[in-house]
Amino acid sequence: MINYITQSFPNFMKKLLIVILMVLPILSFAQTKPYLTAADAERITAAAEAKATAEGWNVVIAILDEGGNLLSLKRMDGVQIGSIDVAQAKAKSAVFFKRPTKVFEEAMKGEGGARIATLPNAVGVEGGLPIFKDGIIVGSIGVSGVTSAQDGIIAEAGVKGY
Amino acid sequence: MINYITQSFPNFMKKLLIVILMVLPILSFAQTKPYLTAADAERITAAAEAKATAEGWNVVIAILDEGGNLLSLKRMDGVQIGSIDVAQAKAKSAVFFKRPTKVFEEAMKGEGGARIATLPNAVGVEGGLPIFKDGIIVGSIGVSGVTSAQDGIIAEAGVKGY
Amino acid sequence: MINYITQSFPNFMKKLLIVILMVLPILSFAQTKPYLTAADAERITAAAEAKATAEGWNVVIAILDEGGNLLSLKRMDGVQIGSIDVAQAKAKSAVFFKRPTKVFEEAMKGEGGARIATLPNAVGVEGGLPIFKDGIIVGSIGVSGVTSAQDGIIAEAGVKGY
Amino acid sequence: MINYITQSFPNFMKKLLIVILMVLPILSFAQTKPYLTAADAERITAAAEAKATAEGWNVVIAILDEGGNLLSLKRMDGVQIGSIDVAQAKAKSAVFFKRPTKVFEEAMKGEGGARIATLPNAVGVEGGLPIFKDGIIVGSIGVSGVTSAQDGIIAEAGVKGY
Repeated sequence: MINYITQSFPNFMKKLLIVILMVLPILSFAQTKPYLTAADAERITAAAEAKATAEGWNVVIAILDEGGNLLSLKRMDGVQIGSIDVAQAKAKSAVFFKRPTKVFEEAMKGEGGARIATLPNAVGVEGGLPIFKDGIIVGSIGVSGVTSAQDGIIAEAGVKGY
Repeated sequence: MINYITQSFPNFMKKLLIVILMVLPILSFAQTKPYLTAADAERITAAAEAKATAEGWNVVIAILDEGGNLLSLKRMDGVQIGSIDVAQAKAKSAVFFKRPTKVFEEAMKGEGGARIATLPNAVGVEGGLPIFKDGIIVGSIGVSGVTSAQDGIIAEAGVKGY
Repeated sequence: MINYITQSFPNFMKKLLIVILMVLPILSFAQTKPYLTAADAERITAAAEAKATAEGWNVVIAILDEGGNLLSLKRMDGVQIGSIDVAQAKAKSAVFFKRPTKVFEEAMKGEGGARIATLPNAVGVEGGLPIFKDGIIVGSIGVSGVTSAQDGIIAEAGVKGY
Repeated sequence: MINYITQSFPNFMKKLLIVILMVLPILSFAQTKPYLTAADAERITAAAEAKATAEGWNVVIAILDEGGNLLSLKRMDGVQIGSIDVAQAKAKSAVFFKRPTKVFEEAMKGEGGARIATLPNAVGVEGGLPIFKDGIIVGSIGVSGVTSAQDGIIAEAGVKGY
């Protein structure tokens, strides 16, 4: 195809075309964003579950995409059913506010900290972590089932598996 | 019954039958769980109502199954209608998190305790109790109508009636 | 095991033990029911996904327990995000009404069929199937992402994998 | 007490007092309305359940007050859990629109009948009945679990028990 182009255009036009073709991908990159695939969600979940199993902790693991929509959820045996919603709420909070839910938990400790409870979708309990790629948010993980500190450890193991 | 079996079967059949009868519960236990019946719900409600009547307290009594679905609800005369949802919310919290709502009430007293309010379905007011059978959760009771401490006393009377 | 018991216990104790072992399953059967485990959910999902992949169809697969609570959810790449809720709604309808959502789809075709739309949690689109064990409902599968007939084929493949 | 009053007031005052005492209940009746008590709800439910048991039908029976708020709910064993919400929805429709849900079911059969589905709280499936006393609405019953015609029969038996 290049040969065909080289023959059918005059020299100046050829050079211009080549410059455009080289710049194109850079321009196009400017309008794409990285995102989590189903395989990513599976790998993150597996890493989290491996840690949970190793510790003997049973939890719910939820993975959301960058729009806050569920990619996958896995409930291990014997987990309280309240954790199904809590894991998703933690993950939603993490991706909606681009920060770990532990940040809100800390913010809620001081005077007037209950104000966080008035923010839609904010969860002030550890166990939700945003997931980044090259500094851009691509989704989140939410874990619930054991203590919030333990939920946080499992969530971290999940992110490391990404 | 044993004698009847011992006499009417040849030796080999007897042993086979005994092996089957011994293995049966193991197989069934492996993937079955206890649950509340309508009669259980009625008995628990009656015990709670008896206590409420004895104390001159009027309340709403809700019984949920282990999946958080309503088995029965009874509203006594003169109770504030807000208690209809509160009783169900307390019961839902108790079965969803496998713990009395009083545990959340206590947790909300300390520094940063308002974080509990950010957990979906968590209720931080006494009056909701999980119901267990052989250590396995089978449902819950939620009571609302008087003070939370009194609601708790009625709920406890209900569980004792199980 | 039988021999070991027969030899190590006196006659009276043997008979007592046998009576206990025979009564045990009856007692437990009276108030226990089968349920889906995390491993069951995984196997059902894998069977559904294998069919979807073989056909080149991308879908969301949701598995609920017998109480209508989420056991697992998996979203394959490229699926419309609307299918996340649709798959769960189909599964909820199937377990809530103990019937395939296709039954409601058919019922909605005749005169006055729109009445189904006024029933809470009823979904009139194929792709949701209840899951039974020994005639007792243990949960459901909900599939969404392609045509409703294709969603139904995948759901069926999932149930067969149970 | 009457004797005490007769002795301590002069004749004219006595007569005035008696007139006031006679008019009082009429005045007060002008601003009261009949309502269902907990005992009424229990009696209605018992009548409905007796019919259901006699027919071998298992259902959910919900009784609402005249404000559409739950007075009592009873789920018999083995009923699909979807019926918990459906029974309440039927009862709500019946008291909200002061008519049996069967009226909406009929209305949905003609051309454009699906418009009923766009009315908040309207349910177009038999099994919900308003309950009247002296021509004034006092509440409703909603039944779900078997066919809608059978649900309707049970609801009617309940109302007759009032």
